[in-house]
Amino acid sequence: MQKQKIAVGVDLGGTSIKLGLVDRTGKILQKISIDSFAAEGPKKVVTQIKLGIKELIKNDNVKIEGIGIGSPGAIIAEKGIVANPPNFPGWGRVPLGKLIESEFGKRVYVENDANAAAIGELIYGAGKNLNYFIMITLGTGVGGGIIINKKIYRGETGGAGEIGHSSIDYNGPVCKCGSRGCIEAYVGNNYLINNVKKDIPSYPNSLISKMLQNDGTELTPKLIYEAAKMNDGFALKIIDDVGKKLGYGLASVVNILDITSIIIGGGVAGFGKPLFNAVTKTVKERVLIPFRARVRIIPAKLKNDAGIKGASALVFYKS
Amino acid sequence: MQKQKIAVGVDLGGTSIKLGLVDRTGKILQKISIDSFAAEGPKKVVTQIKLGIKELIKNDNVKIEGIGIGSPGAIIAEKGIVANPPNFPGWGRVPLGKLIESEFGKRVYVENDANAAAIGELIYGAGKNLNYFIMITLGTGVGGGIIINKKIYRGETGGAGEIGHSSIDYNGPVCKCGSRGCIEAYVGNNYLINNVKKDIPSYPNSLISKMLQNDGTELTPKLIYEAAKMNDGFALKIIDDVGKKLGYGLASVVNILDITSIIIGGGVAGFGKPLFNAVTKTVKERVLIPFRARVRIIPAKLKNDAGIKGASALVFYKS
Repeated sequence: MQKQKIAVGVDLGGTSIKLGLVDRTGKILQKISIDSFAAEGPKKVVTQIKLGIKELIKNDNVKIEGIGIGSPGAIIAEKGIVANPPNFPGWGRVPLGKLIESEFGKRVYVENDANAAAIGELIYGAGKNLNYFIMITLGTGVGGGIIINKKIYRGETGGAGEIGHSSIDYNGPVCKCGSRGCIEAYVGNNYLINNVKKDIPSYPNSLISKMLQNDGTELTPKLIYEAAKMNDGFALKIIDDVGKKLGYGLASVVNILDITSIIIGGGVAGFGKPLFNAVTKTVKERVLIPFRARVRIIPAKLKNDAGIKGASALVFYKS
Repeated sequence: MQKQKIAVGVDLGGTSIKLGLVDRTGKILQKISIDSFAAEGPKKVVTQIKLGIKELIKNDNVKIEGIGIGSPGAIIAEKGIVANPPNFPGWGRVPLGKLIESEFGKRVYVENDANAAAIGELIYGAGKNLNYFIMITLGTGVGGGIIINKKIYRGETGGAGEIGHSSIDYNGPVCKCGSRGCIEAYVGNNYLINNVKKDIPSYPNSLISKMLQNDGTELTPKLIYEAAKMNDGFALKIIDDVGKKLGYGLASVVNILDITSIIIGGGVAGFGKPLFNAVTKTVKERVLIPFRARVRIIPAKLKNDAGIKGASALVFYKS
């Protein structure tokens, strides 16, 4: 019997490296997670990645088609170079692709993690039947990827797709990037949680306040979602506001790109239906008339282990 | 001696049709202007275009390579169809390309006027040596065109590049498109002039107020420019504000597209240096750090007859 074609997906994070063996349909056959030891510099991180891959492929019963790595930072994809990933001290420019390729003798594909998420949806997920779409990942940051004619759009230097740093209010709150009113400065995890904390005293009877009073529970997007499921007005208001802010920003992106399918993933996308309804309504109200009927706001299909799957998709995208 | 290769450029407007014979370097050899009679419907307008072209090519001493038409409205470029151009009653969808092609037996290229302006700069102008740039045309509307790898980017349905309808303030002034805070709602000619009129009473000593008091002179961008040249504080403030508003919007576009060369043309671009300085400063302050050093805000090279030249460039772009 012929061996199954399998990709290794490596999701490089500041705390841990998640790795998996993934088949052509996006199914994870096996996965592991190891420390990235980012504080010890790039050499150590590269050693950890190699260790992880070795552990993963030690059984000889699969044919490894290639290795995909999703990494934070600016990526020069065609050279497999990772430059200055945030939270990775001492990196500068590291030829990660070549370093891994020479160890395993397999083709290695390195991509920015937001672009990898978009390619993951394109190959396995909600973008399989779409020629054009915009991918938004709602996490600590707000990542973006642009698919044009089934290809990732990289821009002049590989930095395209920073939709989280599209501003919806030139006088808005300061974003860590130095601009004001960026989408991320409203709906990025930390900004969102801080804004909600400020508002809690005005909603003393909300379920959110009650859930927090009981013990040392932390305020998280998940807790907001739980309260919303129980129909808490404050929680629903928060989610509606996130949806509107996202919608304002995405309407401009639609007008610029004439791309009307938008896939949203990441933790905050777990707000579910109330979020997607608010985004859809806002985008439809704000885009140019000829685009309105075509607008589709779609939940990402890759949820758990989206990072591993997106990274592995780089292999099938290229081969 | 071989005949020179020449394109016909047709700049279709709601009031007049401007036509010219243009050589490969963008030089206009001959030009005419005729009424468009838009109120009489598409048949009449098409007859007028044909009349104009006949008049233009009646001398047999040039070889016509093809005919380019820059038109308002939504264009299906590959089919030469013009759909619902604003200020042209009764159009719906008109197969303008085929109608002209069958009359003259020459290849006809139809393109949205904002895209034609971008292609004009690409073929003859400030974009000749650029692989990627964004073109902004500041007129009654704020048009946009996106050049990716020396090709115009059309999006899914040919409607891409509506940068004038990128919003910089979700709570900003209502735009005629139905959204709020669009770049056009600040710097489009009519919006700009109306805003300045409102502010005039607060600046009774400005040159602008004085120039207007004398007689029936109308407030125009040109008058503001003249006052600014004489160092009028109010005029310089207006121009600086236009530059900032444009800059806020363009910074988001740069972050989304990773395209850092921006060519600005159209009437309001005549504000010159104070405008370009304000746009450059604002964009550099607001884009993500890796883009900052690369930002270039460039005046359009095609000024007079940019419409004719842009339309004619469609022929050399394709052939």
